[in-house]
This record gives sequence, C-alpha cells and structure tokens, in this order.
Amino acid sequence: MRLMRFEQAGRIGVAVETEAGWRARYEGEPGFPGDVGAIAALSGQQRVAAIEALQSGVAVDATTVSFLPPCASPGKIICLGLNYRDHAHEFDFKPPSYPTLFARFATSLIGHGQPLVRPRVSTDFDYEGEMAVILGRGGRHIDEAAALSHVFGYTIFNDGSIRDYQMRTPQWTVGKNFDGTGAFGPWVVSADELPPGGVGLMLETRLNGEVMQRASTSDMIFGVAQTIALLSEAITLDAGDVLVMGTPSGVGYARKPPVYMKAGDVCEVAIERIGTLRNPVVDEPM
Amino acid sequence: MRLMRFEQAGRIGVAVETEAGWRARYEGEPGFPGDVGAIAALSGQQRVAAIEALQSGVAVDATTVSFLPPCASPGKIICLGLNYRDHAHEFDFKPPSYPTLFARFATSLIGHGQPLVRPRVSTDFDYEGEMAVILGRGGRHIDEAAALSHVFGYTIFNDGSIRDYQMRTPQWTVGKNFDGTGAFGPWVVSADELPPGGVGLMLETRLNGEVMQRASTSDMIFGVAQTIALLSEAITLDAGDVLVMGTPSGVGYARKPPVYMKAGDVCEVAIERIGTLRNPVVDEPM
Repeated sequence: MRLMRFEQAGRIGVAVETEAGWRARYEGEPGFPGDVGAIAALSGQQRVAAIEALQSGVAVDATTVSFLPPCASPGKIICLGLNYRDHAHEFDFKPPSYPTLFARFATSLIGHGQPLVRPRVSTDFDYEGEMAVILGRGGRHIDEAAALSHVFGYTIFNDGSIRDYQMRTPQWTVGKNFDGTGAFGPWVVSADELPPGGVGLMLETRLNGEVMQRASTSDMIFGVAQTIALLSEAITLDAGDVLVMGTPSGVGYARKPPVYMKAGDVCEVAIERIGTLRNPVVDEPM
Repeated sequence: MRLMRFEQAGRIGVAVETEAGWRARYEGEPGFPGDVGAIAALSGQQRVAAIEALQSGVAVDATTVSFLPPCASPGKIICLGLNYRDHAHEFDFKPPSYPTLFARFATSLIGHGQPLVRPRVSTDFDYEGEMAVILGRGGRHIDEAAALSHVFGYTIFNDGSIRDYQMRTPQWTVGKNFDGTGAFGPWVVSADELPPGGVGLMLETRLNGEVMQRASTSDMIFGVAQTIALLSEAITLDAGDVLVMGTPSGVGYARKPPVYMKAGDVCEVAIERIGTLRNPVVDEPM
C-alpha cells in the first residue's frame, strides 16, 4: 500500500494507490483520515476503515498534484548521523558504537517536487539521500526482536544540510534545519510490501542525473530494529514519529573540490521498491 | 500575568492568576483556550478575550493541583548549550561565536512538582537551571531590534541531562531527551512584567537546599533578542515555540567528584521575579 499527501486547487488531500490509480479524501470532508502519520497511528480495524474510506474516494492524477510531506508535523523527527561506515570515514568520524542522533523540525520539510531552498546566508548546500521510517506504534523499552512490529512504513528523505552552519558549533542542529532543506516523500510504502527493516534496497542519490551516492540499505550500521530498541531505552516513541536512517558516502562536502547544490539543479533520491524523490533547487528570495 | 497548566481529578485545566487567586477553565468546557502555547499564539483582541474567559473561570487552589508543562507539545523546543561563559569553560568548550543548539522532544517534559526520573541505564543524571522563552509570534528573518516583540513570556527550565549518553556520540540529543528529565514551569510570566529580554534576573539552582548554580541572566552570551534573530536567519519560528536559554556554571558533571541527582533528592531552579521550579527525583521503575 502507498499513501501520499498533496495539495490541489488549494485543498489538502490524502490518497491511497489502488489498481485503478490514486483515490483521495480532502481535509474537511467526511472520511478524511488526517495525514499519513495519523493513519499510521490508527490501530487494526480503524486503520482498515480509514484505508477503505480513501479507496472509495475521488480519483486524483498524481502527475498534476503538488506533493506535500506525508506527515505534516510529526511529534519527533529523529535523524541518524554517520550510520554508514563509508560516510563516517569520509567525515573523519569513527564509525559510532551508539547511534549519533539529531532532530529536525517540521518547518524544514518539503514534499516531492517542491523546491529545495539554498538560503541567503550560505552556498554550502549538500544532499544526503536516506531511507525514512514512519512508526505505527509507540512504546518505551521496546525489544529489538519485536521492534519491526512498531513500523508502519518506509519512505525517502533528502536530509539537505547547510554544511558551514552544521560545522559551526559542536551541535549540527541549525545546519540541519534551514527552511526548505528536508525533502520527504513522495509517498509512504507500508512495511508489508518491503523486506523486514527495509534491508537490501539500493539507495541512489543523483544530482542533475549524475550518481553521487549509491549503497544498499543493508550497509547501515544501526538497522531499523536496533535503532528503535536503543532509542526507546531513553525516549518514549509515539506512533507517527519519523526516523531518518542516515546517508551513505558520496556527499558533496567530502568531495574534492566540494560539490554543492545551486539554483537550477535537480536532486533525486531513489530507493528500490519505494520510489524516487525528486526536487529542484532554488535560491531563497532576497 | 501568570498562566499555568495543571491536572486535577483527572481533568486538564489552564489558569490565570488574579488578585483573588488562580482562576481556571477546563479542557472540553466553553472558554477553554488550549495550553499556554495556544494562548501565546493568539493575537491582540483574541488573546484578551481568552484571558478574560479564564479570569471569569472557577477558583483553583494551586497548592493542591498537579502542575503540567505549560506548553503540551511545542512545535519546537530549541535549547542553547554553552551559553554562559563560565559553563562553556567548565565543559572544556570555547565560548561559542554562534549559538550551540540542540532540540528537546515534548516526551521529555514534566511539570513543576512532578518527579525527575533517573533512568535505569545510567546514574549520571545532572541538573541545569535555565530560563525559557515562549514565543508569541513567529517569523523568518526577524530583526534583532524587533525580536523581543515576538516574545510572549518567560518561565523556568531544568534541562536534566544524562551525561554519559550526552557525551557518547558527537551529538547530545539522546542525553538531553530521556523521558522525565526536562522540568518546565511552574507558570509562564508574561513579558510585560519582566525586564526586556529577561535580563538581570538572578538564577539559582539548589540541590537538596544547597546552592549549585548562581548567575545573572545578564551573563548569557547570546541574549534572547540575538538568539531569535540568528535562529530566524535559518528557521521559521512559530508562535508557541520554546527557547531554552542555557545554563550557568556549577553543573554536577564538572564538579570533582561529580555530583549527580539520585532518588530522594529535590532539585529547585529559582529565577527572580518568575518563581521556583521544584522537582523531586525518583528512579525509573524496573
């Protein structure tokens, strides 16, 4: 099952893919389930009913809508840094023995097709292709063996980073949270359609068609189940929370000379069996 | 004006202090305005009406309620690290030339009087007394000269930190986000009752009555207005967002030997003209 969130003619909708194409309900109408995070948070029979309501909704043409981030305002967006061995090395960090975590705020998110925004204050705008996980069930002290039952689905993330701001202080927060730098989507694929933990999928980041990153999601140091188990030792996870699983090597910052995104570029992150997240790059208006 | 959020007999209420004591409205009743962040987000006449509705509410005895965090789920909780020169030195960090920022999730928050929770996995549970700011108006590229007009009010924060987890990876996120480690309250004091930017207020952290931290909020490296201006170069700020302004020297981690909080302790953070945030410490149940 694939779920997406979009805007068309000023209305926000959520849609499910059916054999006859995408079917949607719009905000304010009966049967509108909320964003994809709200659907993820529903339990068994309620979730089935919400999906059936979408399936009986109106047809939408995905080629004409404006995609939105599938989740509008997740309670937490927890990102892993340095979670591929080769990427940790290219950043001169030791591969970590515990996940390196930072947060994104929802104000930084954009949907598929929306522009990635290079800010006024920096030219060091880098891509990071990543797999993202939407939790369907929360908890604390979740066993690693049971952790994947807490996953609702998977999608794609471009963890766009303003490198000079990221490195300006010991904490990366501001460099990871500029408006319009976190691309998220296009849709969420339910966990039942993918290998457990989303392993073994090829991830590829392309800048203007050129392959910049290419790795298997199996190369992650901390997999999805282990990450959920470790996080929940400390933090209550909630349904609708988003985990962004880190990027492989090949980022622009580590290239000699560095390769940064600029207005007119197009950045794509493709993950096998999930799809392709494609975003043009623009300059922030002066 | 002081506003607080509380629970009594299973109902959540919000109250304003009047000359005749606290007056409240309860969730689900007419005139309930939402949490303090929702009141902060109202504009002029709407905010006046919401306050008047509270003032005509029922009396509550603040000595018998359970205080809750004044804001239930802020869109952003942005914390400054190393924002007092002496504290940066005791941590062997250079005083920063740009704010060092990290995020807290709402799942880590507790109200005044609720227990600070030392987790199962660590004994390195440290206090950090801080001033917190609730934004009343958002924006991007906010001028420093106009920034204080975006502040709704001020409160107190105990940025409880699990030091071994904080230092385990390059990013402090997990050590700053254990459940039940972020005390927040007791109430929000509106900006008009305090000096502009909350400067010149004595902040004191006491552990079991002993003074552990004592400094003036004037000693912050980045003040409230400058922080809002710098943050909004990167990030759209929203009404209801919370800024936690950093802690002075004297934390337990930097003492020889270190002093950590344990079950049975009581930690208080007092800020002049705001109040005292008092929390007992318990162990996480096994």
